[in-house]
Amino acid sequence: MSTVGIVGLGLMGGSVARALKTLTTDRVLGYDIDEAALESALLEQVVDAPLTDQDLGACDVVIVALYPEATVKYITDKRDLFAPGALVSDLCGLKRVVTDQLEPIVKGAPFTFVGTHPMAGREKGGFGYSTADLFRGASLIVTPYPWQDRAVADRAWAFFSRLGFGRLTVADPAWHDEMIAYTSQLAHLMTVAYMLDPHAASHEGFSAGSFRDMTRVARINEDMWTELFIENRDMLCPIADALADRIRDLSRAARDGDAETLRAMLRRSREIKEQIS
Amino acid sequence: MSTVGIVGLGLMGGSVARALKTLTTDRVLGYDIDEAALESALLEQVVDAPLTDQDLGACDVVIVALYPEATVKYITDKRDLFAPGALVSDLCGLKRVVTDQLEPIVKGAPFTFVGTHPMAGREKGGFGYSTADLFRGASLIVTPYPWQDRAVADRAWAFFSRLGFGRLTVADPAWHDEMIAYTSQLAHLMTVAYMLDPHAASHEGFSAGSFRDMTRVARINEDMWTELFIENRDMLCPIADALADRIRDLSRAARDGDAETLRAMLRRSREIKEQIS
Repeated sequence: MSTVGIVGLGLMGGSVARALKTLTTDRVLGYDIDEAALESALLEQVVDAPLTDQDLGACDVVIVALYPEATVKYITDKRDLFAPGALVSDLCGLKRVVTDQLEPIVKGAPFTFVGTHPMAGREKGGFGYSTADLFRGASLIVTPYPWQDRAVADRAWAFFSRLGFGRLTVADPAWHDEMIAYTSQLAHLMTVAYMLDPHAASHEGFSAGSFRDMTRVARINEDMWTELFIENRDMLCPIADALADRIRDLSRAARDGDAETLRAMLRRSREIKEQIS
Repeated sequence: MSTVGIVGLGLMGGSVARALKTLTTDRVLGYDIDEAALESALLEQVVDAPLTDQDLGACDVVIVALYPEATVKYITDKRDLFAPGALVSDLCGLKRVVTDQLEPIVKGAPFTFVGTHPMAGREKGGFGYSTADLFRGASLIVTPYPWQDRAVADRAWAFFSRLGFGRLTVADPAWHDEMIAYTSQLAHLMTVAYMLDPHAASHEGFSAGSFRDMTRVARINEDMWTELFIENRDMLCPIADALADRIRDLSRAARDGDAETLRAMLRRSREIKEQIS
């Protein structure tokens, strides 16, 4: 049995706590700046006891489930309180913003830090939406530093795989941020651009599956995503610009009646889809 | 009990036949240029008998479920064979290409033609994929000519509503084509542009719901969609170009660290999504 400290009981931290209490015998200590969330977690026995600074040294694993800046601040502030050998991990959706700032703090520290990104979420956040099965079948991305032993990813997986994750992906922080710029950020950016078309308000009766696909994530948290887009702009902007170019190419081919170009692009799209499915 | 002729037993025509035989007592006559499809339909009793030219005059309703050019040719060729007062309808996904060419043929004819577009489909076509519940809950768009009595839409609805459709939308052919350019064509065009990014091949382990949304329809029939894009280019290209502009605007704001512009666009997207949901 391990003792796990969870800092931040929102959707992600709350779901880690619920999964641990449902699927393992770990003892879970939790903290949230919002006293009501912590009280709910204690009442529902999702958390066994509050996590205090004194308890940090008793934690075999500490999961910091905060926004990037708060994550960096927390780990920096508490670095002397973690147990030697403890695994400390964050869950942020971008990694360089966390791992770059933490590198001088955690390199050579007596505890082991490794960044992770659970590829799971819901359209709404907060402890009230957390579930024990949020991670079931999902991919866990672990982002060790280039100087870290590969074994650190295995150690993170030994802990997280018990929460229901379906696969482990190991990537350095920069490759993670580049891929996420495409698979997640660009998809959200496209949804926003699509939703802002003046025809959107009249869609009823004219829409079916593909409209639903394009607009599902449009109820976007504008503060969080504005920060994410800007934070990762070096990765996001070049692929967004290239996407805009391809949309213009498709449009130009249609306008010119250039069936050959259109057909070739559509065929290639189909072939890629078939390869990756 | 009515007699219904169905010309073309692909996904759409086959599904109309199946829905009629499952949900009504109508007699269904069917024709397909592919003898195997017609034989299957007869064997499965989805069609009661083959539809011949001689039988056309016995049909209260004729559904022409062919591609646009074949639809125009069929109705033009057979115009003298339809029963006086019969309802003749097509199911094409673009309307002007059919209704413009047919207008001189059907205006003042003893039969009643009205275009329809069932907002239902599957990712694969052909009689083998047809189902009796394809239209359940879907929107049926009916596109009368401006000179037609509104009652023609009610008459079409009286027939089609028995197939399980959930709502009737009435639009003139041009408005239909403009809205479909947005809700369906642009969504498919965006999917193609997204799929063609070089990161697509590496998505595994980095992707979740939003990637799935953006790529679901990427297994596109390139011949059909090339034709659809070019056919409707006057509607599609302006909105595709405007979309590319908005993607560039979002990208520029991220690159400039212009949080205010980004947040305003994201907020507006969220507000529109909330309004239309």
